[in-house]
Amino acid sequence: MELQERLALINENLVEVLNPELIQQPWDEGRNPKIYWGTATTGKPHCAYLVPAIKIAQFLAAGCDVVVLLADIHGFLDNLKAPVELVEQRVEYYRFTISALLRAVGVSEQLNNLTIVQGSSYQKTAAYVMDVYKLSSCISEHEAKRAGAEIVKQSDSAPLSGLLYPVLQVLDEQYLDVDAQFGGLDQRKLFIAAKEWLPKLGYRQRAHLMNGMVPGINGGKMSSSDPDSKIDLLDPPEVVNKKIKKATAAPKIIEENGVLALVESVLLPAAALSGRREFRVSRDRDGLEPLIYTGIEKVHEDYKNDILTPQLLKSAVSAALNLLLVPIQEAYHASPEWQEVALKAYPPPAKKEKKVKQKGTQHPGLAMRNENIKGSGPEETS
Amino acid sequence: MELQERLALINENLVEVLNPELIQQPWDEGRNPKIYWGTATTGKPHCAYLVPAIKIAQFLAAGCDVVVLLADIHGFLDNLKAPVELVEQRVEYYRFTISALLRAVGVSEQLNNLTIVQGSSYQKTAAYVMDVYKLSSCISEHEAKRAGAEIVKQSDSAPLSGLLYPVLQVLDEQYLDVDAQFGGLDQRKLFIAAKEWLPKLGYRQRAHLMNGMVPGINGGKMSSSDPDSKIDLLDPPEVVNKKIKKATAAPKIIEENGVLALVESVLLPAAALSGRREFRVSRDRDGLEPLIYTGIEKVHEDYKNDILTPQLLKSAVSAALNLLLVPIQEAYHASPEWQEVALKAYPPPAKKEKKVKQKGTQHPGLAMRNENIKGSGPEETS
Repeated sequence: MELQERLALINENLVEVLNPELIQQPWDEGRNPKIYWGTATTGKPHCAYLVPAIKIAQFLAAGCDVVVLLADIHGFLDNLKAPVELVEQRVEYYRFTISALLRAVGVSEQLNNLTIVQGSSYQKTAAYVMDVYKLSSCISEHEAKRAGAEIVKQSDSAPLSGLLYPVLQVLDEQYLDVDAQFGGLDQRKLFIAAKEWLPKLGYRQRAHLMNGMVPGINGGKMSSSDPDSKIDLLDPPEVVNKKIKKATAAPKIIEENGVLALVESVLLPAAALSGRREFRVSRDRDGLEPLIYTGIEKVHEDYKNDILTPQLLKSAVSAALNLLLVPIQEAYHASPEWQEVALKAYPPPAKKEKKVKQKGTQHPGLAMRNENIKGSGPEETS
Repeated sequence: MELQERLALINENLVEVLNPELIQQPWDEGRNPKIYWGTATTGKPHCAYLVPAIKIAQFLAAGCDVVVLLADIHGFLDNLKAPVELVEQRVEYYRFTISALLRAVGVSEQLNNLTIVQGSSYQKTAAYVMDVYKLSSCISEHEAKRAGAEIVKQSDSAPLSGLLYPVLQVLDEQYLDVDAQFGGLDQRKLFIAAKEWLPKLGYRQRAHLMNGMVPGINGGKMSSSDPDSKIDLLDPPEVVNKKIKKATAAPKIIEENGVLALVESVLLPAAALSGRREFRVSRDRDGLEPLIYTGIEKVHEDYKNDILTPQLLKSAVSAALNLLLVPIQEAYHASPEWQEVALKAYPPPAKKEKKVKQKGTQHPGLAMRNENIKGSGPEETS
């Protein structure tokens, strides 16, 4: 693959790249650029995780080395979204899920240039923690708050750990020894902070790659209090069909259209990665030839002209998405370990006991909470 | 020593004790209570450090185990008072000084029940840092700020590390495995926080012992920008005499009188510890018998009545203080290692170079600053 092809694949569907020269530089030096994507191990990964999974597959296809960080400590630093006592189970759940996701978009785990790293494997080492103390001494509370503004729950009553969250994420670039970090556009402030902060400790700046925020299938932001607004990776086909059917997709309107967004960010690039290179919309019911797309421009054009109607679009998206989920769900059903860890990581809510009053817990801060799901990488959409 | 005698010695000159029952409890269980005093290794320890040194000697005399924490990491967490690159030298300087201070008030370092611990020896371990992350997740930014309000420089532009400072100090109680922490009254908010925070991680509450804030010899707070307001432990007798001579001590007024405060908090208890049990004011010049004191009440009474004049008081305080400093200064002058470390830990300010412009440093946050001296324990007085 020519360098320009590599760079085009790396940049596909990205909305912003900071210091792109740092991606090319390693190749000039005769080694592969190394890119990391991190996800805080909090709520169950859903279909939005297909977006970074596809980008990772593209980075690998372009010849990059990739590190996937399962950020277990970040899972509780952000407002205890992953309660401390469930963190170990959550990270195992994420390990199963992310691996299956990557396989679903064509990534072989046997690849030498893909590494999955658990945050706590190095974020408790003496060198790392000394840098946490040092970096905290070189940045102001205000800078820490600004860096995390869009990714960590913030308020005066929010946990102090929310201010540590960006400190760790910035140091991860150094300790994972990468050339670039990839994440959603909501990471922008943190990425800018990383550029400013690392040199304070004498470390080099990294490149930052950002994809756009994909709207939820309801057109707005995904909400975990509304299960219909996101599609779980383990949702069976009939559930996926029902959710897509209910999704907001006004005829001829391409803006804030979560179903079209799925085509652009997931289905078209997944098709390209698989070698099929097309998104196919069947029109059998109307006795017409299928619509075949290889790029989003034509999809948008046909949608605006109502050639591609919401109904046609939704059926085609459901079918393609279900196809993409098949290997993930097969892997889940074939793995008693994954199923067992799912139960432990996300225990069903305890039934309310009427007779026995709950005693005040010794660990009030560590109690399980029902919080919105938010990873350090994927967008809050489905 | 009877239990009541032990407790009286522990409580002497203290202004407040939280959970005193936790001091007695270990004896009931057949072991010695273990008390810790911590000092952030920042500026040069001065005469105010005699106050905690005497309390430590009293705790030991009462049969307690004592841990002295040389809090090196705290030294830079608080607004980089100890610049990161000087921390190792500062902690060595403190080790020499605190040891000499303790010997000066009669403590033998060979005592099995005295331990000097360096903060970084355990504050970088995996278990400790995991608790830093966890505790940060259970307390709010506001709570961290409140806990450190009187001991850490605070503002929106202050370093983030100032909010970590109380988190570490609270965890130190657990990791030093103590029954109580001793400090100045300025630690009160942090001590209250420790009582509240440790149980959040399932750890037990500790007792907290506080001595009052001793006014500076100028009557107000010590200021490191005014070298006359504090007496260095290495000040030669003529300098001590000069500083005491210039000290504020209005005739008959015992309030905000830093010279009388030295008698109460340092000279009388040091005399008691040494077995002399008296503070002697010579009146040879007037051909009178000396005034001999064994308690502060009589000192105050005579001072109010101008029997003990400011001039008499100052001469006697200078003489007694110089006597107390003799072994410290002898140890310093006999130790090339200590002298060498003093130069490294507190390098003389570089002369301004007029021709060579300084380049922008790669470590702006880590540059040396000239900050006020503030330890985690001793009062800001001399």
